Amino acid sequence: MAKEKKLVEAITSMEEDFAQWYTDVVKKAELVEYSSIRGCMIIRPNGYAIWENIQKELDRRFKETGVENVYMPMFIPESLLQKEKDHVEGFAPEVAWVTHGGLEPLQERLCVRPTSETLFCDFYSNIVQSYRDLPKLYNQWCSVVRWEKTTRPFLRSMEFLWQEGHTAHATAEEAEDRTIQMLNVYADFCEQVLAIPMIKGKKTDKEKFAGAHSTYTIEALMHDGKALQSGTSHNFGDGFAHAFDIQYTDKENKLQYVHQTSWGMSTRIIGAVIMVHGDDSGLVLPPRIAPTQVMIIPIAQHKEGVLEKAAELKEKLGNFRVKVDDTDKSPGWKFSEQEIRGIPLRIEIGPKDIEANQAVIVRRDTREKIIASLDTIEVTVGEVLETMQKEMLERARAHRDAHTSSAADYEEFKSSIENKPGFVKAMWCGDRTCEDKIKEETGATSRCIPFEQEEVADTCVCCGKKAKSMVYWGKAY
Amino acid sequence: MAKEKKLVEAITSMEEDFAQWYTDVVKKAELVEYSSIRGCMIIRPNGYAIWENIQKELDRRFKETGVENVYMPMFIPESLLQKEKDHVEGFAPEVAWVTHGGLEPLQERLCVRPTSETLFCDFYSNIVQSYRDLPKLYNQWCSVVRWEKTTRPFLRSMEFLWQEGHTAHATAEEAEDRTIQMLNVYADFCEQVLAIPMIKGKKTDKEKFAGAHSTYTIEALMHDGKALQSGTSHNFGDGFAHAFDIQYTDKENKLQYVHQTSWGMSTRIIGAVIMVHGDDSGLVLPPRIAPTQVMIIPIAQHKEGVLEKAAELKEKLGNFRVKVDDTDKSPGWKFSEQEIRGIPLRIEIGPKDIEANQAVIVRRDTREKIIASLDTIEVTVGEVLETMQKEMLERARAHRDAHTSSAADYEEFKSSIENKPGFVKAMWCGDRTCEDKIKEETGATSRCIPFEQEEVADTCVCCGKKAKSMVYWGKAY
Repeated sequence: MAKEKKLVEAITSMEEDFAQWYTDVVKKAELVEYSSIRGCMIIRPNGYAIWENIQKELDRRFKETGVENVYMPMFIPESLLQKEKDHVEGFAPEVAWVTHGGLEPLQERLCVRPTSETLFCDFYSNIVQSYRDLPKLYNQWCSVVRWEKTTRPFLRSMEFLWQEGHTAHATAEEAEDRTIQMLNVYADFCEQVLAIPMIKGKKTDKEKFAGAHSTYTIEALMHDGKALQSGTSHNFGDGFAHAFDIQYTDKENKLQYVHQTSWGMSTRIIGAVIMVHGDDSGLVLPPRIAPTQVMIIPIAQHKEGVLEKAAELKEKLGNFRVKVDDTDKSPGWKFSEQEIRGIPLRIEIGPKDIEANQAVIVRRDTREKIIASLDTIEVTVGEVLETMQKEMLERARAHRDAHTSSAADYEEFKSSIENKPGFVKAMWCGDRTCEDKIKEETGATSRCIPFEQEEVADTCVCCGKKAKSMVYWGKAY
Repeated sequence: MAKEKKLVEAITSMEEDFAQWYTDVVKKAELVEYSSIRGCMIIRPNGYAIWENIQKELDRRFKETGVENVYMPMFIPESLLQKEKDHVEGFAPEVAWVTHGGLEPLQERLCVRPTSETLFCDFYSNIVQSYRDLPKLYNQWCSVVRWEKTTRPFLRSMEFLWQEGHTAHATAEEAEDRTIQMLNVYADFCEQVLAIPMIKGKKTDKEKFAGAHSTYTIEALMHDGKALQSGTSHNFGDGFAHAFDIQYTDKENKLQYVHQTSWGMSTRIIGAVIMVHGDDSGLVLPPRIAPTQVMIIPIAQHKEGVLEKAAELKEKLGNFRVKVDDTDKSPGWKFSEQEIRGIPLRIEIGPKDIEANQAVIVRRDTREKIIASLDTIEVTVGEVLETMQKEMLERARAHRDAHTSSAADYEEFKSSIENKPGFVKAMWCGDRTCEDKIKEETGATSRCIPFEQEEVADTCVCCGKKAKSMVYWGKAY
């Protein structure tokens, strides 16, 4: 009992200290271990299995839109990184530099890729000649490095895993369509699989990607009311094409520059899953992404027939990702572990249950207990998992809506940011000056100009001039 | 026609210049493109799709043996790399060093991982406490960097993709069992999926991995008679455990050192697939690993009903990986492309075939043509693919056996190495001196001490002293 207590007590309450709660959960659920390298994390099996499921789901969705996977070198020569002015300014201050190979100094420094636009551009300039070569719809799964000062597991680390799609198109319109298409792929994936509702919109010029014409984003709201940018999709127009000389011959035999996009989602999204769905007992994983969906925990497993019945039950639930915890720990300890790790359902089965031809299903999110007949338990489990998935999304959406307010003037805006953690919808004149002022005075940043616009007021919440658009504001990770 | 001719002529004949043939194939089959970074390759969609299939097959086999995936940092601090003496001596001369992060010099240099033993050891020393924590059976899929002087696509590049498994066990016996188990997983995979027969054996001390007690290997023979080390599995004993202080409390509450293994297979194996099965028309992919197994090529596709029938046929073959080439290229051009890319089967279907309710299946390896009724073509395709897979393995085995000889004395040995490219089986006394001498005088290295021993003679082929074991020798990639 002492040990069990220790396991649960190890997690700080969310209300007490959300940041500490987060750190406790990633550590106690064994998602991550700190490494000897400052700011680099070790992703443990419980964490990596979530990423594998994310990869599988996203990769399938990408391929359905015609995307093919490739692998580019992890190094970028300094001269290549410098070819696009805005891009190098954005990334050069935060890259890791390789200066020696073996025992020799290098003639030219190489940076470890912080992102691979420059490599893809160099590649495209070699392989794109004719309109027949377009579009190029390439993606890679890899790790990238950004030399961050302060880091947190999943949310911000020096090295992280991601996918980066890079496409080249014949026309500006095609590129814009692809940019939006991939943003929708991300948003649909997050809602349907991760049960996280997203605000889709455009970044302001201040917040857009280094070198992009426009950046689109999906923004989620965490349990503590802070926003998390969860995926981005960039339209580069023909800017990189000019810098890297990527031209093709069109049907009229005229040389044209290509139009490009890039889009990425990273292990950061695991941070969103933790902070949207978790509770004081630990992680809560949406069934569709959970590496283990059901943990069968035998009660009084030393008694005759119990372990056999548990194994039989696992067999019967073969359509789901199921495990039996038949270790020599106590059932209470096993419950705590299953809860900390966020496994969606546990099934308790002991001698009395077996006698009654039943088992007890317990939902991780609501703790609801469902007595299920062993004859049809595979149907019940399927239904409960579906319901749980649906309700997790509904709860996340309700939480977000309850933490989204509108502000017509600056006083209201400041009060909302200060007192009601969450999104604030407010009008904006479009000037960088107001954006900077708001950030400086309130700590809130523009999250996005949402596709779904509302007229919260006529004038900019900051300067009072005529408003151009409604913006979601918030403090962010 | 001129264009078609160009496509085929682009590949140098194997007999004329095998190295150039190889380069032509990887380039013309669009497996790889050279990058701006010396020695680093871009893996293009045709190449990466092969790697994805290899990953899927291997990963499933690993997981069936209880292995879990993790992700470790790509950087290793210099002090960590230096903890195991033999290991650092083996790898330090060929690593890339990161000396600056952002605008600041680092206090300690970091190397880009050439392999991750040191990181896993550091990790295990933190998470292994009790016998209950063992075994740890972890694997990661990642890229590694080795600063090679001369490079060739897939075979030897500065950066390459691989998996590296790292396990920790309570006993020496368990570690040895796991080392052999994983070697068998590799060998079975290569034979069953890649249709490449392997010699399984142990490396000599000279050829073993830096820091290992023993290294096991699978060795394949390429078309040109050179050997290719295709996968290795290392038993570290408790050497790293001592260097990194990885101890656990056993059931008697006594502190014990763990015993460790590591094992890896890389994109190098794609080079083996090319060099074992390819021919003068390009790549030949075994059906089980081919990203596209069947290419349907419509004949006279402008004629009414042809493209519709081709699409219908694709539908009917839904259990296979099938594509229709409905581009506006000529059929001859499409045939050449399908052949260069090594797609196992093409199906030609034109107006006359449709009238006769049939299609023509052409095997990539033998060029055999099979007329198949459209009513049962899905059965025929399945059978032909199975036969092709089986016969490719048989042919590869026959080629290897025809290029394997035995040598009882040194004259015979030297003559074999010089005149009959392939493996030479010969006895060895066990002395490094003889191994060095053979390498210096003939260019052949010991490939392995095979598990299946034969008594080719009584005495060492080099020094004439009493022989300890039979060794496979050969020139190698």
